[in-house]
Amino acid sequence: MGKTILLGHGSGGKLTGDLIKNTFLKHFDNPVLRELTDSATIRIKDKLIAFTTDSYVVDPIFFPGGDIGKLAICGTVNDLAVSGAEPLFISTAFIIEEGFPAEELEKIIRSMKDEAREAGVIIVTGDTKVVSKGQCDRIFINTSGIGYLDRKYESISTGRNIKRGDKIIINGNIGDHGIAVMGARENLKFETEILSDCASLNHLIKAVLNSGAEVKFMRDITRGGLATVVSEIVDNSKYGISIDEKTLPVRESVRGMCEIFGYDPLFIANEGKVLLIVSEESSQKALKAMSRHEHGKDAVIIGEITSDNPGKAVLHSIIGGSRIIDKLTGEMLPRIC
Amino acid sequence: MGKTILLGHGSGGKLTGDLIKNTFLKHFDNPVLRELTDSATIRIKDKLIAFTTDSYVVDPIFFPGGDIGKLAICGTVNDLAVSGAEPLFISTAFIIEEGFPAEELEKIIRSMKDEAREAGVIIVTGDTKVVSKGQCDRIFINTSGIGYLDRKYESISTGRNIKRGDKIIINGNIGDHGIAVMGARENLKFETEILSDCASLNHLIKAVLNSGAEVKFMRDITRGGLATVVSEIVDNSKYGISIDEKTLPVRESVRGMCEIFGYDPLFIANEGKVLLIVSEESSQKALKAMSRHEHGKDAVIIGEITSDNPGKAVLHSIIGGSRIIDKLTGEMLPRIC
Repeated sequence: MGKTILLGHGSGGKLTGDLIKNTFLKHFDNPVLRELTDSATIRIKDKLIAFTTDSYVVDPIFFPGGDIGKLAICGTVNDLAVSGAEPLFISTAFIIEEGFPAEELEKIIRSMKDEAREAGVIIVTGDTKVVSKGQCDRIFINTSGIGYLDRKYESISTGRNIKRGDKIIINGNIGDHGIAVMGARENLKFETEILSDCASLNHLIKAVLNSGAEVKFMRDITRGGLATVVSEIVDNSKYGISIDEKTLPVRESVRGMCEIFGYDPLFIANEGKVLLIVSEESSQKALKAMSRHEHGKDAVIIGEITSDNPGKAVLHSIIGGSRIIDKLTGEMLPRIC
Repeated sequence: MGKTILLGHGSGGKLTGDLIKNTFLKHFDNPVLRELTDSATIRIKDKLIAFTTDSYVVDPIFFPGGDIGKLAICGTVNDLAVSGAEPLFISTAFIIEEGFPAEELEKIIRSMKDEAREAGVIIVTGDTKVVSKGQCDRIFINTSGIGYLDRKYESISTGRNIKRGDKIIINGNIGDHGIAVMGARENLKFETEILSDCASLNHLIKAVLNSGAEVKFMRDITRGGLATVVSEIVDNSKYGISIDEKTLPVRESVRGMCEIFGYDPLFIANEGKVLLIVSEESSQKALKAMSRHEHGKDAVIIGEITSDNPGKAVLHSIIGGSRIIDKLTGEMLPRIC
């Protein structure tokens, strides 16, 4: 870490990883934190519990397809769900700038309520702080979440059962959230409106788990994008990942925006996308279960686990070349979630 | 609620209560949240779990007797402990302003580590967001916490077993934290340095519970001060509270500062003080257990539960008069925690 904190330290990419390893993990080190999973798996008496936290600072707070309130519920629900847990309870903590319109607060709270109902979680505790004008930008929301983790899904969050030939599935188009938020921030007009994919994925994930498909790992693809997720999966692994670019689902309008602004959709944030690693034999079963679900209609296999290129994620491009996919460096779109 | 959010909505006093009831509870309503306890008591399979969250925005972030990191651990540990739970796991979420010195972040993290060790809790999960310069004031920290709640202490957080004659105990001087932070903020020089009382009280509380004293209710006395806590306890109750002003422990230097600035120590925030309601018969046992403990040396009975003045907390003053103690209105010292 340099002498000061940079925007990139909050990008979810390489600098965030460095900050976590060199500062947080250095001091807070313990076996649970060391796993660096989306949710911590903790044990209370004989029960396994998933526990996660996220602060939301998205700008603007209202964007096509969602708002900071909906995002704060979905994001935390998804962090629990990808660990194999059933999301149950949510805490909400608000930091509000003095003078924030009460009407907007109520709109945000209504979104949270609706999304909590949709996801089937209960908001059980909360906190409110108000700071003077100029001391925060409108409103920041933290949600933490608790879920019940069935012992049979305990290995999912660590991915320790991954092996060569396992298939990599995602549940639909990448890049929608990032481009929708950027568009709203910059007041861009799109020919076809791009909506954030912001959604709670716990019901979709439950459907896959219940289908009997052998799910070995899941992660929601948020800050840092698909590139950062796949690169993290193979960090220090004896396996590699191979991604087939032509299978990657990207909306035409998102691809167009990325070309104009020089972004790579692989690094754009999503808020309703999950990457699953599933055994080869059960991959069709997983796809079938997903395709029946609203948030999984466009589910597709995008690659597989390889024994070539251990520790690396490799993208095989449409034109026949291949390149290594690395984590996001720097910060492309600050305050995306 | 008016048209905009005011500083007072984050005071922990009357306006905060209104915001919770008229906005959060209106939309998020459910039996757990409705209790409005410091920690939510939730059930996962057959286990009782306490769950709490708090965001810390204290200004300045370093103050005599502590810093935002220590505070973020103590505050959440105490919210769990006063519900009768054993604090176990903590999440930490940072919102950091771009350009924040890495060295100060490390100092804060070291404080958190030390206090977590002191309290015996484990930091198991976290999140970091970075916002551009001017979009937050240096650093805000959210901690959420999980504790195990033994069934025999289940009634403590609701205080449903309180009855006439029960004694009210606090563990020492009030007002130290608020005045220490205010002094640091305004760069005041005190003749004798006033240190924040910022401390994790879970070991003290465990000692009282283990002593066999019949503890009927506990609450840590933070934002809004002792006045707000006692007033909330008797809200809609058939009992009243009587407080004997001459027994109230207030440091001379704190009393002096309060006189100069026109503050009432009853409304000043604390971060290492707990109010206990204990059966009359076991009150000496509780005091004895507390007095053996570092954070309970000055424990004292300050009043009792009455059947006079139901729904009211009454202060019997040194000069023989009496007055009703109400919740904090407005905001005296913003960003005190």
